[in-house]
Amino acid sequence: MVITKQSILEFEKFYRTNFVNSVSGFKSANLIGTKSRDGKTNLAVFSSVIHVGANPPLIGMLVRPASVPRHTHINIKERGYFTINHINKEIFKQAHQTSARYIENISEFDECGLTPEYTEPVRAPYVKESKIKIGCTFVEEHLIKSNDTIFIVGEIMEVIIPDDVLMNDGYIDIEKAGTIAISGLDSYHETKRIARLSYAKPDVVQNKI
Amino acid sequence: MVITKQSILEFEKFYRTNFVNSVSGFKSANLIGTKSRDGKTNLAVFSSVIHVGANPPLIGMLVRPASVPRHTHINIKERGYFTINHINKEIFKQAHQTSARYIENISEFDECGLTPEYTEPVRAPYVKESKIKIGCTFVEEHLIKSNDTIFIVGEIMEVIIPDDVLMNDGYIDIEKAGTIAISGLDSYHETKRIARLSYAKPDVVQNKI
Repeated sequence: MVITKQSILEFEKFYRTNFVNSVSGFKSANLIGTKSRDGKTNLAVFSSVIHVGANPPLIGMLVRPASVPRHTHINIKERGYFTINHINKEIFKQAHQTSARYIENISEFDECGLTPEYTEPVRAPYVKESKIKIGCTFVEEHLIKSNDTIFIVGEIMEVIIPDDVLMNDGYIDIEKAGTIAISGLDSYHETKRIARLSYAKPDVVQNKI
Repeated sequence: MVITKQSILEFEKFYRTNFVNSVSGFKSANLIGTKSRDGKTNLAVFSSVIHVGANPPLIGMLVRPASVPRHTHINIKERGYFTINHINKEIFKQAHQTSARYIENISEFDECGLTPEYTEPVRAPYVKESKIKIGCTFVEEHLIKSNDTIFIVGEIMEVIIPDDVLMNDGYIDIEKAGTIAISGLDSYHETKRIARLSYAKPDVVQNKI
């Protein structure tokens, strides 16, 4: 079936939100950890984290100032640091629960049963229960004029991973680490590798790595 | 293990590219279809497509002007249209092959064995073999100063999906449609739903939908 823009605009609000949120494909499943100016920890589930560049190592994500994770944006701007923590199957319910509208004085770590932990160089809390964790500093942001969301770019300060998921060619086997994916607002998915493919060249048949 | 930014900067180039590309989590697997000013079709695999907003329906993606999909960026700016086509298990090898450095006169559709198809309102080619397809118009772009990449935002003009993947609440079951996910530069993954969770509220235990 073909669904036009006009139909999408006429959808009931929650129906439209489900629809458009699921149409872009599978999404990364991460918890963003931050700390406020007065030291309160904040944790929020994000499905918009993407790779921006390898040299320098950059990561981007979209924040919605008008919605729940607004503390995340304020904290990143005020403190300059945030952590990205992969969601795995063991913690996906706690991770999802961080999207509830808790008041500012309440930490999602306490309410959702996750444990903050710290390293010396990064002034934001990691999630202990996550297996792949990235500490970032804020580097730039861009206002998306069409809907007043903000695309934030961070530079990677450190990456924390289990020893056995780093492959010989630098690839991190996030599936082996139990990282999951999101579709739509609320659907969580395990993955099963089909194949890794070799670097594509014209006139060369694809081979598995 | 902890890998510092300094270590990442000292990695061999291809090792670093694999490493940073895989650290952000699972990524959407899409083919972007465009047409040049003189009517040549172009197709490129992208793993950076994300949801930007539901009202108006917006989608974003990061393009690298210095790398292979540069034709995509030029075509989007010149013609104002692009299509997003979900990659499924049946076409992932052809999709990966579009990342080879073909010269400008060659269409990845022909070289990779995929079929262009069109609808009346969208001036860019869809991929016939894809099951979930989105026609977009260009609305804005932002230069990421840290590495000269560009974040592009498009507005959804139409969505084409199989009838049986649209759920009662507007959620599109992309797993049922066979959509796959990417990790790193070259790893393709099927998914298996763990659960859909209900809208999170403070003090309410998570339930499956």
